[in-house]
Amino acid sequence: MSLIPKNNNLKITIIATGDEILYGELADTNSAWLSEQLFKNGILVSNHIHIGDFQDQIVSLMRELADKADVALFSGGLGPTEDDLTIEAVCELLQVQPVIDEPSLERAKQVYQSLNFEFTENNVKQSMVPQGSRVIPNPIGLAPAFSIQFGQCTFYFLPGVPREYKAILEQSILPELIALKKNFDSAPISYKRVRIIGIPESHLDLQMQPVMQQFPAIRYGFRAHYPEMWFKMLATGQDQKEADKQIASALKEIRKILGLKIMGYDDETLPQVVGRLLSERGLTLSTAESCTGGMIGELLTEIPGSSQYYLGGCITYSNAVKIDLLGVDSETINQLGAVSQTCALEMATGARQKFKTDLAISVTGIAGPEG
Amino acid sequence: MSLIPKNNNLKITIIATGDEILYGELADTNSAWLSEQLFKNGILVSNHIHIGDFQDQIVSLMRELADKADVALFSGGLGPTEDDLTIEAVCELLQVQPVIDEPSLERAKQVYQSLNFEFTENNVKQSMVPQGSRVIPNPIGLAPAFSIQFGQCTFYFLPGVPREYKAILEQSILPELIALKKNFDSAPISYKRVRIIGIPESHLDLQMQPVMQQFPAIRYGFRAHYPEMWFKMLATGQDQKEADKQIASALKEIRKILGLKIMGYDDETLPQVVGRLLSERGLTLSTAESCTGGMIGELLTEIPGSSQYYLGGCITYSNAVKIDLLGVDSETINQLGAVSQTCALEMATGARQKFKTDLAISVTGIAGPEG
Repeated sequence: MSLIPKNNNLKITIIATGDEILYGELADTNSAWLSEQLFKNGILVSNHIHIGDFQDQIVSLMRELADKADVALFSGGLGPTEDDLTIEAVCELLQVQPVIDEPSLERAKQVYQSLNFEFTENNVKQSMVPQGSRVIPNPIGLAPAFSIQFGQCTFYFLPGVPREYKAILEQSILPELIALKKNFDSAPISYKRVRIIGIPESHLDLQMQPVMQQFPAIRYGFRAHYPEMWFKMLATGQDQKEADKQIASALKEIRKILGLKIMGYDDETLPQVVGRLLSERGLTLSTAESCTGGMIGELLTEIPGSSQYYLGGCITYSNAVKIDLLGVDSETINQLGAVSQTCALEMATGARQKFKTDLAISVTGIAGPEG
Repeated sequence: MSLIPKNNNLKITIIATGDEILYGELADTNSAWLSEQLFKNGILVSNHIHIGDFQDQIVSLMRELADKADVALFSGGLGPTEDDLTIEAVCELLQVQPVIDEPSLERAKQVYQSLNFEFTENNVKQSMVPQGSRVIPNPIGLAPAFSIQFGQCTFYFLPGVPREYKAILEQSILPELIALKKNFDSAPISYKRVRIIGIPESHLDLQMQPVMQQFPAIRYGFRAHYPEMWFKMLATGQDQKEADKQIASALKEIRKILGLKIMGYDDETLPQVVGRLLSERGLTLSTAESCTGGMIGELLTEIPGSSQYYLGGCITYSNAVKIDLLGVDSETINQLGAVSQTCALEMATGARQKFKTDLAISVTGIAGPEG
């Protein structure tokens, strides 16, 4: 059974154009990001498509989507160089000419002037849009987005640069799509992701059976996301309250079964949970890493406000450094090896003392075939 | 102009199925990986498609591809749960029944026995394939892959788990596709990625103009991949030697123009280049990181053999730790602040002494709105 309900009738296709996607140089993260934003607003995407920088492929895909999709969002191909063909493709399809969007051109000239760069003919191309299209400003980059209507489908065209793609969507297009959704027969959705640590998938499946039987109208999904397991629930209802209530009731049962094995919910990551717990308790933390080489420190410091509780760490990749810096006993390493419980304990103890923290995490092990 | 030559006539479509891709929980990295493997072997993918866990969508996409593609590779939907629908879809299309693949079932039973897990009815599903299909063993997971012929297209179906996906492709399917390519009129390809540091895209474009004019038969591409800029070249030729020769000649000119601004080529990353240069010179390195919180250490230690030259580092997130551990002068922090050149220099000096290395890198700055 699919987690995506079929009564959601707004049909959206997300397309990324660009040869680099087709020869694997670049994974398309824009489509995943946009799908997630839409999903959070109760809109479920129909499909994703990646095609190369060929004008005829863009044109024929547009023809196909004109009577298949309600909305099609293209990205890529709006740059200044010869392999940017999206505008030409749209002009070919609509039998119009590209025209200069004066506000975009003015802005581009100002940007170039402020950077003391020469403004070339090539740069004019980035300010062009197909005649008759609706221009959508780009708040941070040069090429504007634009929208056209063709067949029964509303087409949007955006630059592929992720920063610009996200900025334009957040500022202009997502609000339009959320408003558009109201015209379609789509049921309110409630979605919950339960993030679990310490249970293998097969056991979780068994433990969740009673919940799945008790609430058969909810759609369930499992995903192994090492070191976490995700248990996902999606409910639909006549109104949002009804959908949310189903999830809340199921969640109550899940908490009874899993207890402390639940690490968090939805987007809350392990470093965020660690940070939250340390903050709540007013505790400080340091790290002593060997094979992970600073990864734990990096994960901890990615969280805004982490300087409140994370004071620092040592990357003690060599044995000499473990001894000199963290005070690991050389006998421990000689007799038990650097990859031993005793060494890990001495590393953590050393870090706690060095950094004067309440707690310390240490990791020791062997990374890769050559260390 | 597209980097992908149009005379490559083997038409391959890569499809990933799974709701989680369409609600943005998961970016599809399998398709990027496979595209890259194929590209390295001179095979250029036509397109990528993501669809949800709906049997009718799988069936209608297969019908569509039957006379459009030569090869279609599906992944996902071969698991034991209700949302795994790929086998049902193939059976519906071919009007056959699912049958048990005995070797896969035997193997699955052995795996379950060795793990001391109960083997349930659900698990049998993972050993099933559509009747008449060619079974392709899964060397590391439970569900086998399989292949069918429908219309003019060869369809492959693989599990979506990246580890299993890659293992099956490498062992069985990639060699088949490489052999298949010989039947198609595809020109040999030579591809080179020049990785550059310290030149903005617009300037690189200007500097590369003479090269692009001197070798007009090569296709060129630019990509900003912060902090690097990539200049990409793709040449085709009657034979591999001819294609390679074009790239080699252009590269000679590029080296004259860019000199030391070239960081590396193709897949060689900055941490790899740093490691190679340190190894060649017999030098050792340590790190002192503030706002990057261990990221540099992690990047360095990801490289196999890094323990030869990277001895360790300090994550000195708080000022007190910068002073205590690295010997930064408290006056430096009071008067110039922790984010100052003097502090960075004292951090690096401190790390060099602490870790007894020839070189040290330090980073200090402010990360995020709350530190």
